[in-house]
Amino acid sequence: VDEHIDALMRDGAARAGTFSLGGGLPASELFPRRALAASFLRVIREPGASALQYGWPEGRPGLRAWVAERLRRRGAAVAAEEVILTSGAQQALAIAAEVAFAAGGRIGCDAESYPAALALFRARGLTPTVERTGVVGFYAMPALSNPRGHGLGEDERRALLARARAAGVPIVEDDAYAELRFDGRSPRPLLAEARALVFHVGTFSKTICPGLRVGWLVAPPDFRQRALVAKHTSDLEANSLAQALLEDFLAHADYDALLDRARRFYAPRARRLAEALRRALPAWRFTLPEGGFTIWVETDREGDDAALLEAAIRQGVSVDPGRLFRVDQRASPPALRLSFASEPGPRLAEGVERLARAWAG
Amino acid sequence: VDEHIDALMRDGAARAGTFSLGGGLPASELFPRRALAASFLRVIREPGASALQYGWPEGRPGLRAWVAERLRRRGAAVAAEEVILTSGAQQALAIAAEVAFAAGGRIGCDAESYPAALALFRARGLTPTVERTGVVGFYAMPALSNPRGHGLGEDERRALLARARAAGVPIVEDDAYAELRFDGRSPRPLLAEARALVFHVGTFSKTICPGLRVGWLVAPPDFRQRALVAKHTSDLEANSLAQALLEDFLAHADYDALLDRARRFYAPRARRLAEALRRALPAWRFTLPEGGFTIWVETDREGDDAALLEAAIRQGVSVDPGRLFRVDQRASPPALRLSFASEPGPRLAEGVERLARAWAG
Repeated sequence: VDEHIDALMRDGAARAGTFSLGGGLPASELFPRRALAASFLRVIREPGASALQYGWPEGRPGLRAWVAERLRRRGAAVAAEEVILTSGAQQALAIAAEVAFAAGGRIGCDAESYPAALALFRARGLTPTVERTGVVGFYAMPALSNPRGHGLGEDERRALLARARAAGVPIVEDDAYAELRFDGRSPRPLLAEARALVFHVGTFSKTICPGLRVGWLVAPPDFRQRALVAKHTSDLEANSLAQALLEDFLAHADYDALLDRARRFYAPRARRLAEALRRALPAWRFTLPEGGFTIWVETDREGDDAALLEAAIRQGVSVDPGRLFRVDQRASPPALRLSFASEPGPRLAEGVERLARAWAG
Repeated sequence: VDEHIDALMRDGAARAGTFSLGGGLPASELFPRRALAASFLRVIREPGASALQYGWPEGRPGLRAWVAERLRRRGAAVAAEEVILTSGAQQALAIAAEVAFAAGGRIGCDAESYPAALALFRARGLTPTVERTGVVGFYAMPALSNPRGHGLGEDERRALLARARAAGVPIVEDDAYAELRFDGRSPRPLLAEARALVFHVGTFSKTICPGLRVGWLVAPPDFRQRALVAKHTSDLEANSLAQALLEDFLAHADYDALLDRARRFYAPRARRLAEALRRALPAWRFTLPEGGFTIWVETDREGDDAALLEAAIRQGVSVDPGRLFRVDQRASPPALRLSFASEPGPRLAEGVERLARAWAG
């Protein structure tokens, strides 16, 4: 079934004229191309060309210091030495799975969660579950969840920490969208509360661009050495070029201004998609996201999300089928994750109308 | 012990004035900086900026086609669709370990082999061995070995294939240095002989530059889908920027001329290092490498390679201690891997004299 859905999604992506409400892709209009080009021309001239050479597995000191400083501003006392730069947030998740959950078991997740994390857990012998007991650990997105785009409330946050502490099991904190909340408040990470339990995972993919594939992991002190071995044996180091580019870019850019711009860019798109859904598909349920790139919608009758995806692609719009996000992988009633990030407003509205035609069958 | 050696090697790298006979780093003088800069400026302007966006887990079609074409020229009938681009050769090895050897067991290796592969196997529950029976698979560098810099003879090659076939176990073929043989003959890969058994691993790290972190895996057909899942769950995709850079660079560059230049650059350095060794340390044993970056030397009395490394660093030269390469991890009689790739001739000679002083104690 996953291969069938994969084929459908590739088909949708390959068809000219298809509007994309699928994927978690940031808007390419926001990529700071000019500034990255300036950084490239600076780093490529450096004697020794460290941007093109091998580096240490933990990554460039300057970039690690930058990540640590950002986390300290949010309340987590992290030193540069504690940050491991990774090949995107996904590799940080994979390292956490390798060092903390090698024996397998059940891992507590939201009922809907990030598909590549669920796929990773399954590939590594872990079973995602919505149960909160009898688990080897938790996977959570406290600042802003994917696909729903909601942050944990204070009570939920406390309850999650209490459960992990009581069971003595780690929490993998996926912080990918923390700085893209529309309210601009990046909450205090769980890392700040329970250092010995939290694998903290972040990335530049959503805020700068994903093609550089640089993220980070702050592992609990007891796991740090094993995490570094896992990083080294997985792929030696995050690519030097992107690390050097980011280090230089961040030394020159106003990152907070860049985040403000991104929030002001995405928030109206979220409202536009929500309005279109209310108008064209009033029976579908969703809540407005607090940030990020997507809206999670649930339909109102039994059906099959793969069939809905197929019909949508025939109508000229691609979407992400809900089963990929559901811990129980169920196809019915169909749910969808719809992205407002990569299409401009008029195409979002037209995309929803195409989707409504697909649903009407 | 590994942490001790790691600390020593970092200490050596950090000291100003230290000559480097350690590491497997290519010469930065050979990095095609100007051409990569031209490629960067082309790909960053592309509408949609695919170099900065997410891509499919298997990688860019054009670059996969290039890899397949190179392999076909060497006798392996590989289609572009069969190539998975990876985050360097190391990740290709990690994927092979994940999909072929998940149950652990013993893996047949040369008595001296590539340290990051040995570390990977150990981290993933595999035990490297020089035994040729009772193994779950083999790890080999048939075209050119690391650290010795030798290719397999025709008899050894046939014997390896026969053993793998008889036991029905895979061979992981590490082809990293295949195009850097001084004789310019890149041999027919094992992949061409036993498609169903061979995980073929290659990289741009040694020939273009390592900082881009792009390599490839051609998995046996039965493992291909699992390998793609492992790639996706490990880090989503090899970084898009480096893929786009390489695709553009290779469309414009004369890659064979670049390889010729690299061979003509490294071969005299190998001779220079060998001469310096014969002169300053006549009792040490080594054979001239057929290519690559390094000479494997064995000393003539009992001792400890970590102590030798420490003494060498005090004398102002860094080296790679032999235990990292030895399947049995033994420290004595000390052996070393010496690199001729990253220092010019006079520094190679002076580095060996420093090493001789360290050895004399």
